[in-house]
Amino acid sequence: MEPKMVKALVFDAYGTLFDVRSVLNRCEDVFPGHGSDLTGLWRAKQLEYTWLRSLMGRYEDFWQVTQNGLVFGCRSLGLAPSQDQIDYLMQAYLALEPFPEIAAALDALDGLPCSILSNGTPTMLQSVVHSAGLESRFQHILSVDEVRIYKPSPVVYRLAEDRLGIRREEIGFVSSNCWDVAGAKAFGFQTFWLNRQKAPAELLGVEPDQIIGSAMELTSVLS
Amino acid sequence: MEPKMVKALVFDAYGTLFDVRSVLNRCEDVFPGHGSDLTGLWRAKQLEYTWLRSLMGRYEDFWQVTQNGLVFGCRSLGLAPSQDQIDYLMQAYLALEPFPEIAAALDALDGLPCSILSNGTPTMLQSVVHSAGLESRFQHILSVDEVRIYKPSPVVYRLAEDRLGIRREEIGFVSSNCWDVAGAKAFGFQTFWLNRQKAPAELLGVEPDQIIGSAMELTSVLS
Repeated sequence: MEPKMVKALVFDAYGTLFDVRSVLNRCEDVFPGHGSDLTGLWRAKQLEYTWLRSLMGRYEDFWQVTQNGLVFGCRSLGLAPSQDQIDYLMQAYLALEPFPEIAAALDALDGLPCSILSNGTPTMLQSVVHSAGLESRFQHILSVDEVRIYKPSPVVYRLAEDRLGIRREEIGFVSSNCWDVAGAKAFGFQTFWLNRQKAPAELLGVEPDQIIGSAMELTSVLS
Repeated sequence: MEPKMVKALVFDAYGTLFDVRSVLNRCEDVFPGHGSDLTGLWRAKQLEYTWLRSLMGRYEDFWQVTQNGLVFGCRSLGLAPSQDQIDYLMQAYLALEPFPEIAAALDALDGLPCSILSNGTPTMLQSVVHSAGLESRFQHILSVDEVRIYKPSPVVYRLAEDRLGIRREEIGFVSSNCWDVAGAKAFGFQTFWLNRQKAPAELLGVEPDQIIGSAMELTSVLS
């Protein structure tokens, strides 16, 4: 089947545009010797809680879930963070570093409308996009908070289709999270797995349409 | 509020009655030096895939999901298992060891009807219960395969309520998986978190009714 024209791109935020590992310095600062383990546990638990709460039908927003993931991560390392320490670490999420190629990659896509579809709350997303100086690059910044369920529920991907007003087959979805790509592909987007780390693909019964190693490759795979 | 009488107990299987870490010997046997890492990754991925597939609305049964988790775990360790190796490792799931106190704990509950509610397929559950010689101990062995969605969806817990014909407040639910306890509690069961490893509680907005360190404690907390 000939691929359809991509009329707009939708990006995942955390891990795709913004490096969730950029919390590492603060983690190491607060808990010396535990920075790397805490960074990994924090992210893993944050995601796990989005899936579990979605399945339980007990949505809480991503700020809350991220904080819960942080606190659990600390406890499982035997650390007892104070509220001040939690607040300090949580602030890191408002200013995550964009991956180094992102601004240039967005520039190179000139003319193609780009949006964000993310688990983050509207406040978190506005903040991280502003902090990275990327406000002018995105047409829509869409949060699952509107639909109160997390990725990879099809309800989330439908939000982007509805808001962009473009048919799903003509939307290109870019994510570094292979499970997010699987959800997007199952919904019907054209999918681009941004696999910077050359990780093995998740075995979820759906394959990404394209695999790229850097956002800079989007221009060539789309042309 | 006075706790209601518990008229029946429902047990989770994997990690609660049966030790998922008993696959370790085979993992180490097939991939020397990787047994422990592979055992941990296999279980983590197996669970993750149940949640992701449930959220995507793309159910596959637990045998398939367990095999997918195993293959992903191998690949993420740089291992390339043959189909024979996969088959050999998967067989371990049909004969997981029961935790050492389980038979005695079930005996001590004499008279109280006990059932299993598990992610496992009917075949997997029959096999592991038979292998442990526990067939006569359980009234119902219920599999999510009937409802084609995984824990902690409330649809799963409702299956037990329906099949037992007992109101949810009068069913005691026992699991070592804190997130499973959270789902069961959110549904309305009385919950017993069997926390053998003294792990920190998951932060999912619901607390277990009781926390025990061994299944042997059920008799006393129920009386």
